[in-house]
Amino acid sequence: MYADKESIVVVIDVFRATSAICVAFHYGAEKIIPVATVEEALAYKKEGMLAGAERNAIKLEGFDFGNSPYDYMGSHVKGKTIALTTTNGTQAIEAARDAYKVVIGSFLNIDVLCDWLIKQNRDILLLCSGWKNKFNLEDALFAGAVTEQIKAKNNKYILGDGALAIKYLYQIGKERPTRFLNHSSHKERFAKLELKEDIRYCLNFNMAPVVPVLEGKFLVKATL
Amino acid sequence: MYADKESIVVVIDVFRATSAICVAFHYGAEKIIPVATVEEALAYKKEGMLAGAERNAIKLEGFDFGNSPYDYMGSHVKGKTIALTTTNGTQAIEAARDAYKVVIGSFLNIDVLCDWLIKQNRDILLLCSGWKNKFNLEDALFAGAVTEQIKAKNNKYILGDGALAIKYLYQIGKERPTRFLNHSSHKERFAKLELKEDIRYCLNFNMAPVVPVLEGKFLVKATL
Repeated sequence: MYADKESIVVVIDVFRATSAICVAFHYGAEKIIPVATVEEALAYKKEGMLAGAERNAIKLEGFDFGNSPYDYMGSHVKGKTIALTTTNGTQAIEAARDAYKVVIGSFLNIDVLCDWLIKQNRDILLLCSGWKNKFNLEDALFAGAVTEQIKAKNNKYILGDGALAIKYLYQIGKERPTRFLNHSSHKERFAKLELKEDIRYCLNFNMAPVVPVLEGKFLVKATL
Repeated sequence: MYADKESIVVVIDVFRATSAICVAFHYGAEKIIPVATVEEALAYKKEGMLAGAERNAIKLEGFDFGNSPYDYMGSHVKGKTIALTTTNGTQAIEAARDAYKVVIGSFLNIDVLCDWLIKQNRDILLLCSGWKNKFNLEDALFAGAVTEQIKAKNNKYILGDGALAIKYLYQIGKERPTRFLNHSSHKERFAKLELKEDIRYCLNFNMAPVVPVLEGKFLVKATL
């Protein structure tokens, strides 16, 4: 299903991998190589490449970045190629690899993402990474936001039951997303102060208006 | 996950298997043998047992029942043992078999089900059968109704992100469930008139106040 060869898969891990990826491209990164394992990321690092690695919400030692969007803000990423592995997000990219196209979604790029998706004129599959194979509320909320925006911009799309459900969910959550997510599982995972800052940032709309798209083993910025 | 040995699994297939099962017990059926395949149901039928079989929303020829709740209303089920196979519901029972306990949920038994669940004092896993391995809106709506009722009756329960999401969903859907489900996938599956009647019936609360529980290979009525 995640590898539907005819559909575009949007990989979603808003806290924080797909938000961080959007930020990196917005600040001028040239390519990102998403890898499933820490070992692969380390191998790139040893070749002299910049590399990010996160597991269980923590940046791993010896790497240049974790998956905080703040790690990728600044001139240090400009023109660079970065290898990246995260707990959930890069695994989801891996699972989607055989799709017609794979793109990266977050609140930070929602409007350009939706416009780009509509232009492709294809079936769309919203792949919520979740947390360690479990459903999570923040990715579903974002998927609902995409569903609402795409349906509003082009009524031809037919929504499956899952898309209907998250669209309803977004109707409840959109006015006050922080409050909506207040009792959800990320609270426990992200209790530390600096992660609260990250979360606040990741809930902003359109701060990083880029569409990262997978080409072979690289994520690159799509031409808009 | 579906076979968590410490948890109670509630199997949910409101359109229509789990609704039909509740009705059968309410009308006095003694036991139901849920089986995964048509062949198994047929074998029981050949032994002289009553047997129900549904695939793709249609009652199979040569069987006594499909999975319409109306099939099971009346004195013909009283004191009987019935073998049953359905497209999704009985498969879900099979998947949950190793749980601490497996019970059957539908709008028709929601209040007694929730009271019974709270009395067990165990973790609860709401297993939405869906439709052919896909999420469906009606099962999620019912799971949200259970979540809301249990949390209201006993605040000690901690909700995972999935439970939070369906609880929100139920908040939107509860005033007008038929309208809420109006654009969902069941419309296509159940376009025929007699199925519309079934759907209307299955959305009633507490018409069949029984708790069917799995004991070995049999579903039986729990003592309340």
